[in-house]
Amino acid sequence: MQEWLQEKKPVLIDEMERHLAVVSKAAAQVSPWAPDLLRVLLPFSSQGKMIRGSLVSLGLKLFDENPPDCQRSAANKTGAVMELFQSLLLIHDDIMDQDDFRRGKPSVHYQYRLGAQNRGDRQEQRLGENLGICMGDVSGFLGFEILADLDLEPIRLKRLIRLCSRELCYVGLAQMEDVHNGFRTDEPSIADIIKLYRYKTGRYTFSLPLMAGAIIAGQGEDCLELLGELGELYGIIFQIKDDEIGLFAPPETSGKPQGSDIKEDKKTLYRYYIFARASVDERARLAAIYGNKSAGQAEIEWVLNLHRTLGIEALVSHELASTVTRATILAEKIQGLTAFGHRALTSVLRYNQERTW
Amino acid sequence: MQEWLQEKKPVLIDEMERHLAVVSKAAAQVSPWAPDLLRVLLPFSSQGKMIRGSLVSLGLKLFDENPPDCQRSAANKTGAVMELFQSLLLIHDDIMDQDDFRRGKPSVHYQYRLGAQNRGDRQEQRLGENLGICMGDVSGFLGFEILADLDLEPIRLKRLIRLCSRELCYVGLAQMEDVHNGFRTDEPSIADIIKLYRYKTGRYTFSLPLMAGAIIAGQGEDCLELLGELGELYGIIFQIKDDEIGLFAPPETSGKPQGSDIKEDKKTLYRYYIFARASVDERARLAAIYGNKSAGQAEIEWVLNLHRTLGIEALVSHELASTVTRATILAEKIQGLTAFGHRALTSVLRYNQERTW
Repeated sequence: MQEWLQEKKPVLIDEMERHLAVVSKAAAQVSPWAPDLLRVLLPFSSQGKMIRGSLVSLGLKLFDENPPDCQRSAANKTGAVMELFQSLLLIHDDIMDQDDFRRGKPSVHYQYRLGAQNRGDRQEQRLGENLGICMGDVSGFLGFEILADLDLEPIRLKRLIRLCSRELCYVGLAQMEDVHNGFRTDEPSIADIIKLYRYKTGRYTFSLPLMAGAIIAGQGEDCLELLGELGELYGIIFQIKDDEIGLFAPPETSGKPQGSDIKEDKKTLYRYYIFARASVDERARLAAIYGNKSAGQAEIEWVLNLHRTLGIEALVSHELASTVTRATILAEKIQGLTAFGHRALTSVLRYNQERTW
Repeated sequence: MQEWLQEKKPVLIDEMERHLAVVSKAAAQVSPWAPDLLRVLLPFSSQGKMIRGSLVSLGLKLFDENPPDCQRSAANKTGAVMELFQSLLLIHDDIMDQDDFRRGKPSVHYQYRLGAQNRGDRQEQRLGENLGICMGDVSGFLGFEILADLDLEPIRLKRLIRLCSRELCYVGLAQMEDVHNGFRTDEPSIADIIKLYRYKTGRYTFSLPLMAGAIIAGQGEDCLELLGELGELYGIIFQIKDDEIGLFAPPETSGKPQGSDIKEDKKTLYRYYIFARASVDERARLAAIYGNKSAGQAEIEWVLNLHRTLGIEALVSHELASTVTRATILAEKIQGLTAFGHRALTSVLRYNQERTW
């Protein structure tokens, strides 16, 4: 999986750059902000590991080890689209979370805030966010244009665009719940938490790109449904590891300040278990630290130690292990996998399960 | 045009409702916010006059007075899509402008802020905006799904989706300039202002839906180009009238508090001319009032009276008249118009030119 990501990333950046250059040029007379497609959006969209984008080609090769050039090209372009959709969501997410940095680099709205400061504009905070909201929107539109231009047979193209728009609609609605969780004063249940992992992380990060690849390969609805479910399970595993990294990874590698999930009161599985296991006194202290943006280093350390003392990692591991088992069984039900496909699914599962910071 | 709008509006609402009901039901297990597609998004999207949505069918009938059912239906659905795209842009726009009301009713982010207050969530202002950002995104995705499902011949469908995504991309980039204009401390030129009317209002409100209708009718690129240009001119006319309404209309009918364009320092043609014509003393007073959110009624009245004293309306009228002439000449160049088409274009022009509050 690591190698696959490394192989695909430059291909995806290349596809993205080609399209952004065309639109940026065509839009030059429309708006002085057109060059920002290459200056701001492209580098932002090229920062990550491009898991989503890379999985489209993988989804295609699950069913055809030597796909025709037009399908191979459609999968690469669709991969670039996944990354543009991802940028839309991340740019808006950073605004919502008021995160000025992403992967250690200035987020889009923060870049625009700095630009506003340099120009001497008024209300640079608001202006930065507003320009970020627009750039996020634009990133999504660019994605749909690439899809419309794909050289695919008409039925597959329709299915692909329908899939993307429906799944993005779901992720937007799930994101509303995620956003709400950060501000609510009542407690979500464990089922609510897992549901969010499944539908927000899972369907979007894994189901959507794998299904997109399968559509390009011409697979039917039954196959897509299994891949969709499998992606949801991958998402649960991925998100649990993400939470683990967010809690325990050193800030240099996670790209986020230590304890940021705690300060933001992110409703993770770890958080659920620690509140459930803590004594009355500990719980009171936890409640005072979670969601407190100005919590100090000592308080964060205390929370992390309490995770160890109360054996929270073991509890989370059980959830992880049972999900891995379900994913393994489910993967065996998928018909028509190539030899590469069998290996690839195992590799994706292992990657999700074992990734560290 | 008035009758056309009245005839189409219920049809468009019906198309929109049908699709939102399907997705809302399908998304029920994904997120507790799924019912908001019908509870929040549908009423918000049904509030306006639906100019954009109505113009798609009009664009089709420009070239075919009795189009086949499949084209007629595709135009109605595409009209509903235009209104969903419009909702995406308006929901985000209200957040950017911090407008709690739109057409006299609570904007989407304000509805969510009120909901957050009722539930006792934290930071209801931020949460309201965040949920609004998400709902705006979702509205756009819903639009692309309807497009993907249209029963149109493949080439036309591709052209239609490409048109929508490219034009939305342009409107997003133009919106960035509009946003920036509200916060900048230097002055845009008259060319900058007209460019924004052309590319933001014009292409999006008129060119896009008319071109969409023409694509459904099977018209070629030359025809689309003329319609695109014509739409830009309509947009200039429409925006000038919009600015007039924003300045002089009583708040009951404009749906905005009196003088809100002045308080927001909107860079309109009126504003350009009044600053250009004012004496040094008047200009200093104007500069203190424009962009001052707490400007009082007496100050707003003084600005409005100064428009009359300095003959600003006459200056703006000249710009309007010359644009009307250019639009009339351009419309005559379009090949293949039906008799209805000739009347309709005249009627759209007259509607834009003469509409009052």
